[in-house]
Amino acid sequence: MPELRKDPIIGRWVIISVERAMRPNDFKVSHAEDGEEDFCPFCEGHEDHTPPEIFAMRRPGSERNKPGWDTRVVPSISGRFTIHGNLERRGIGMYDVMNPIGAHEVIIESPTHYIDISQMDVDKLELALDTAVLRIVDLERDQRFKYCLLFKNHGARAGGSKTTRHVRSQIIATPVTPTRVKEELRGSRIYYQYKERCLFCDIIRQELESGIRVVVDSMHMVAITPFASRFPFEIWILPKKHCADFINIQRDELKDLARVMKIVFSKLYKGLNDPPYNYMLHTAPFRREKRSGYWLTIKEDYHWHIEVTPRITQVAGFEWGSGFYINPTPPEDAAKYLREIDVTI
Amino acid sequence: MPELRKDPIIGRWVIISVERAMRPNDFKVSHAEDGEEDFCPFCEGHEDHTPPEIFAMRRPGSERNKPGWDTRVVPSISGRFTIHGNLERRGIGMYDVMNPIGAHEVIIESPTHYIDISQMDVDKLELALDTAVLRIVDLERDQRFKYCLLFKNHGARAGGSKTTRHVRSQIIATPVTPTRVKEELRGSRIYYQYKERCLFCDIIRQELESGIRVVVDSMHMVAITPFASRFPFEIWILPKKHCADFINIQRDELKDLARVMKIVFSKLYKGLNDPPYNYMLHTAPFRREKRSGYWLTIKEDYHWHIEVTPRITQVAGFEWGSGFYINPTPPEDAAKYLREIDVTI
Repeated sequence: MPELRKDPIIGRWVIISVERAMRPNDFKVSHAEDGEEDFCPFCEGHEDHTPPEIFAMRRPGSERNKPGWDTRVVPSISGRFTIHGNLERRGIGMYDVMNPIGAHEVIIESPTHYIDISQMDVDKLELALDTAVLRIVDLERDQRFKYCLLFKNHGARAGGSKTTRHVRSQIIATPVTPTRVKEELRGSRIYYQYKERCLFCDIIRQELESGIRVVVDSMHMVAITPFASRFPFEIWILPKKHCADFINIQRDELKDLARVMKIVFSKLYKGLNDPPYNYMLHTAPFRREKRSGYWLTIKEDYHWHIEVTPRITQVAGFEWGSGFYINPTPPEDAAKYLREIDVTI
Repeated sequence: MPELRKDPIIGRWVIISVERAMRPNDFKVSHAEDGEEDFCPFCEGHEDHTPPEIFAMRRPGSERNKPGWDTRVVPSISGRFTIHGNLERRGIGMYDVMNPIGAHEVIIESPTHYIDISQMDVDKLELALDTAVLRIVDLERDQRFKYCLLFKNHGARAGGSKTTRHVRSQIIATPVTPTRVKEELRGSRIYYQYKERCLFCDIIRQELESGIRVVVDSMHMVAITPFASRFPFEIWILPKKHCADFINIQRDELKDLARVMKIVFSKLYKGLNDPPYNYMLHTAPFRREKRSGYWLTIKEDYHWHIEVTPRITQVAGFEWGSGFYINPTPPEDAAKYLREIDVTI
C-alpha cells in the first residue's frame, strides 16, 4: 500500500509507492544526451561566440575574452532580464507589473567540452563553485535585487539545450523573492518559532541517526533522499553545520561540497545512465537582516541546501493542479540503490 | 523588453516576453497523438476489461458493466489510493505519515473512441460534466475526504497514456487539502478581507471590460488567457456569476460550460494542432462551512474555475526552484490568436 508523506518544510503531501515500487530499470529513462551537437560557443578558443565575459578565473597572463581560463561567466542571450534601469512597479487596473530588472548569467564551468559535472575533476568543480559564490556576492551588492537563484538544466527533458551541452550552470537575480522560496522561509520560520531549532538541522540529525535515506555522509556535507521526495531519486545536499547563506561557506566546506557533488552526480550518471536533471541552490534571500524585528533569527531559521531532481517521470495534471506529488520510488530504495553504486573519484 | 507580471491570486511572478514573443508556429508542438494505440479497454463493448463500474449514465434497459452507456466511471487501476479503512495519521520522528485513504476514479466520457473532448457533441459533453458533478457530490459525502480534484491529462507530454487515448478525465479525492489549493484560498481570502469583493469576480469584470485577454464570452461563462499566464496559451474558464463550489452549478450554466469547453478545446485542437494539455477544476474544499467563525464568507471568497494548460514548452530548473515562470507568449497575443480561429460547433 502506498504512503502519504508530508514535507516538513512547506507542508506538501507526497504519495509514495512503497510496495509496487519502481526500480531504476523500470523507468524508460530518456537519456540526457539526446541532441546532435554542433559548434560549441562555450569551449575554450570560442570566446568571441559569446557576449563579453562578466567574470573569469584566468590563468596568469591570459587576456579577457581570450583562452586561458578555468571558469568563465557571460550574460545569457535569452534576453529575459535587463541589468539596466530602475525598478518601476505599477498597476494595470487590479494587476501588478514590474519592468524586468534582473541579471541572467551563464557560468561556463569548464574550458573543456564536458557535458556533466561528474566528468570534471574535484578541484575544477571547486573552482566552478567558487565562481558561483563570487557571482552571488557581487550580485548581492546590487540594491535592486532580492534573490539569486543558482541552477542547472541538464538534458532536454530538464529544459537544457538540445544542441549545446557544454557543462554550465546559470544564475538569475530577481527584484522579488520567488513564491517557492517564500514558502520555504515561512515553513522554516514557523518551525523555528515553535522549536527554537533549525528545521533543516533537525532533518539532518534524524537522517544521520536512521541512515536509511543517506546517500553520502562526508566530513562537512550530507546527501540524502528527502523523506517526502517528490521525484524518484531526488537528492538534497546540505551542510552539516548550520548556515543560512551559501555565500558564507568556508573553504574546507566548499572543497567537501565539490567532492560530494562529484560523488552524487557520478552515481546518478552511472546508476541512471546520464539522466536529465535539474539542481537548484536554495539559499537565504539578500538583505534579510534589514527587516525590523527580524534580525535575531536570520542566522537560525534557514539552512542553505542544493536540491537535485532527476527528470525521469512525467508530471501530470494532478500534480500541477494540486501541488500533491506522486512518487513511484520510495526514497529509502533510491538511497540504497545510489549508496551501492561504486564510483571512484 | 519582457514584463514581470504578478498573479493576483497567489502572488506568483511570471516573466512575459512581450517583444520577442513566440507565435504558435515558433513552437515545435509535439503532437498529443504520439502513441500507437492497441486494444482500448474504455470503448463500449469492452466493459469486462475495466474494474466494475462505480457509476454509469445508462440507456434504459441496459445492464451494469455491459454496453448501453453514455458515460461510465471506474476505479483507477493505478493503486495509489485505497477507499477502505480509517484515516491514521502518525509521526516517524519529526515526519508525518498517513495511510493513503482516497479515491481515484476514471470518468470515461464517451462510449465512442474519441481522443479529445473537441470531437464530442455538446450534449454528450454536458453528460460528461454532469457525471463529474454527481461523482464529486457522492465523494463529498465521505467524511474522510477534504478535497476532490477533477483533471485531464491529454497526450504523453501532459502525463497521459501513450497507448490508450480514449477520451476520459480523472477524479482524485484526498484526505488533506493540497498545498496549491490552500495557496489560492489564502490569496483570495486576503483579497476578500481587504476589498469585501471576490477576487475572481473582480478579475472577470476587468477582463470583460478590456476584452484583450478574452477568448470566449458567452451567456454564463468566460474563457480568458490570464494576465500572469504561466504557460503559452494557458486558458481559464470561469462562471460569470459568483459561485465557490462547482457542484452548485445550475443547469443552464452547465449547458453553457459544455458549449464553451467545446469551443475552447476545438480552438486548441485546430490552432495548435492537437497539443498535449492538462486541465484542472479548482473548486472550494469540502465542508468549509464547518470551520468556526468562517461561515459567513464561505460563499464569498472563492470562485470555481477550470485551468487549461497546454504543454508546449519545457519547464526547467529556474521555474522548479523558484515558482517563477517564464512565458514566451503574451496572453494578449494568445487570446487574439485563439479568438480568430474559426470553429463551428
